[in-house]
Amino acid sequence: MKRYNVAIVGATGMVGIEMKKILEERKFPIKELRLLASERSKGKKLEFSGKALLVEGLDENSFTGIDFALFSAGASISKKFAPKAVEAGAIVIDNSSAFRMNKDIPLVAPEVNLPALKLHQGIIANPNCSTIQLVLILKPIHDYARIKRIVVSTYQSVSGWGKEAVEQLWQETSEISKTRNPKVKVADRALPYQIAFNLIPQIDIFLNNGYSKEEMKIVHETRKIMQDDSIAITATTVRVPVLVGHTEVVNIETQNKLSAAVTKEILKEAPGVKIVDDLNKLQYPMPIDVAEKDDVFVGRIREDESIPNGINLLVVGDNLRKGAALNAVQIAEELIK
Amino acid sequence: MKRYNVAIVGATGMVGIEMKKILEERKFPIKELRLLASERSKGKKLEFSGKALLVEGLDENSFTGIDFALFSAGASISKKFAPKAVEAGAIVIDNSSAFRMNKDIPLVAPEVNLPALKLHQGIIANPNCSTIQLVLILKPIHDYARIKRIVVSTYQSVSGWGKEAVEQLWQETSEISKTRNPKVKVADRALPYQIAFNLIPQIDIFLNNGYSKEEMKIVHETRKIMQDDSIAITATTVRVPVLVGHTEVVNIETQNKLSAAVTKEILKEAPGVKIVDDLNKLQYPMPIDVAEKDDVFVGRIREDESIPNGINLLVVGDNLRKGAALNAVQIAEELIK
Repeated sequence: MKRYNVAIVGATGMVGIEMKKILEERKFPIKELRLLASERSKGKKLEFSGKALLVEGLDENSFTGIDFALFSAGASISKKFAPKAVEAGAIVIDNSSAFRMNKDIPLVAPEVNLPALKLHQGIIANPNCSTIQLVLILKPIHDYARIKRIVVSTYQSVSGWGKEAVEQLWQETSEISKTRNPKVKVADRALPYQIAFNLIPQIDIFLNNGYSKEEMKIVHETRKIMQDDSIAITATTVRVPVLVGHTEVVNIETQNKLSAAVTKEILKEAPGVKIVDDLNKLQYPMPIDVAEKDDVFVGRIREDESIPNGINLLVVGDNLRKGAALNAVQIAEELIK
Repeated sequence: MKRYNVAIVGATGMVGIEMKKILEERKFPIKELRLLASERSKGKKLEFSGKALLVEGLDENSFTGIDFALFSAGASISKKFAPKAVEAGAIVIDNSSAFRMNKDIPLVAPEVNLPALKLHQGIIANPNCSTIQLVLILKPIHDYARIKRIVVSTYQSVSGWGKEAVEQLWQETSEISKTRNPKVKVADRALPYQIAFNLIPQIDIFLNNGYSKEEMKIVHETRKIMQDDSIAITATTVRVPVLVGHTEVVNIETQNKLSAAVTKEILKEAPGVKIVDDLNKLQYPMPIDVAEKDDVFVGRIREDESIPNGINLLVVGDNLRKGAALNAVQIAEELIK
């Protein structure tokens, strides 16, 4: 079996570490794994398949001999170094927002739009975490009943903003737990406000139309992956004091009749999707249950009685895993098939 | 000035204590305050206007001489004792769900449907916490542009379920903070699952249509208070690890054109509503800022680009205060005007 040289750019970040873990778990055929990060992390040692690997500083020569470069170090790093990696002969799978809306670059969730992958010219974009788990449940519904409009509200975990935000939640929680004073201010806050015992209705920066960048990512990326610009989407994204696992409350209006029972039948067959929906047993998806799971979990599936053809449901996924690292590795797996 | 004898039924609960506090703060003209609770709480002492009052056990004779009886001890207590209080000559303001949908009993948010109050026959129902903050922002929008449909997702704090749920969150948080293991099981859990670092997409029991009772309360109570059964509403309610303050993401479709700018103008004039919406200064409502505040806070007001006439916004209110105790005291204030 052919083996490949793989680089992870941003190897010490939460998604980078998850990428390394998933490559190992899924036994991706690796010859050499190169861990790349900023100067700050250079020289750190990380374990892979029982061996300690040295983290290297990222520079223009980092990609010599690399077959696949998995980027997760922010859009500016991707813009600067992804073209260098492609020049050096690597295929780039980029988890940043740098190239997602570039019309010549495929944006791929393998369960949804695998054929788009074939059109790549060296770079493939990995969708945003909040988009991936959404399209996995939307695609089979769209194929069956034609989606007209979607209203999404998100409940996004702090790990989506990186390890500094996770540390902020831990530190605030520890302080509050000591004093039982629910207001706290810790040093080196990664998020704009306190997140412990609070919600922040802002993810990423705000744009001129009053939406956050995260909200517009959901709108634009969903349409691109579903290859249908006629789908109307509106989103509100909110950060919640949860470590891992994004939750989305989704209201779906379809062109054709769609019952809750049929929705369940459709989603039962959907790749990468698992239904947790038994109200008698109080079973529904919750973030605490999805950490470390590959599947996207869906529940609370019911008809929306406020419109002729509507469905309400709730989808929860591990934002580091299917929302980022797993999806990137799945793309690499498809490319070597 | 005339002074009144007031009873609080459920005086040791979170809402009962808030009622006592608000009566004192707002200098409600009280002659005698009678604190009523279950046998378990009988004999406790609570302070009111600098005096220690003894909590009495609730029985059929508790209402002799009482002018206003504020109930917040659950629907079964209200069903049993509210008629007794009325027989004894008291006006009942009931914070339980017992009478809310009874067509002969007014369901009142004073800022929205004050005239309904006049029709009471002894009992007035106080709306559910998640409904009150919603109707305060919906009513002025409906008056201006006729609401066709509303999609609501809630982020509800644990205090909405009572002090046992608050204690569960404290205990779980304390355990997790010690071990940094995000899964925990404490004894005497009030909610169906762990709530610290988690979300529970269930509030109250589930009904046959797949909705929770809380979700259907929002639908039915909103229509009754707005006196318009033509308004289409669908809701998904979720419990979040927040102590006080319910957040609601609201998508509103109107019959007539309505810009974000006009929505802000309308809500600026709305009684009991305060706008916190300056994206340049990262200002938006958050639960941590609304505790102990009388107003309902609204922000993230923007046009929904997915339909011709749509507005997205976010509303946050203190569920114990405007969502329960304050609204009940405001009703009493209107009755003595």
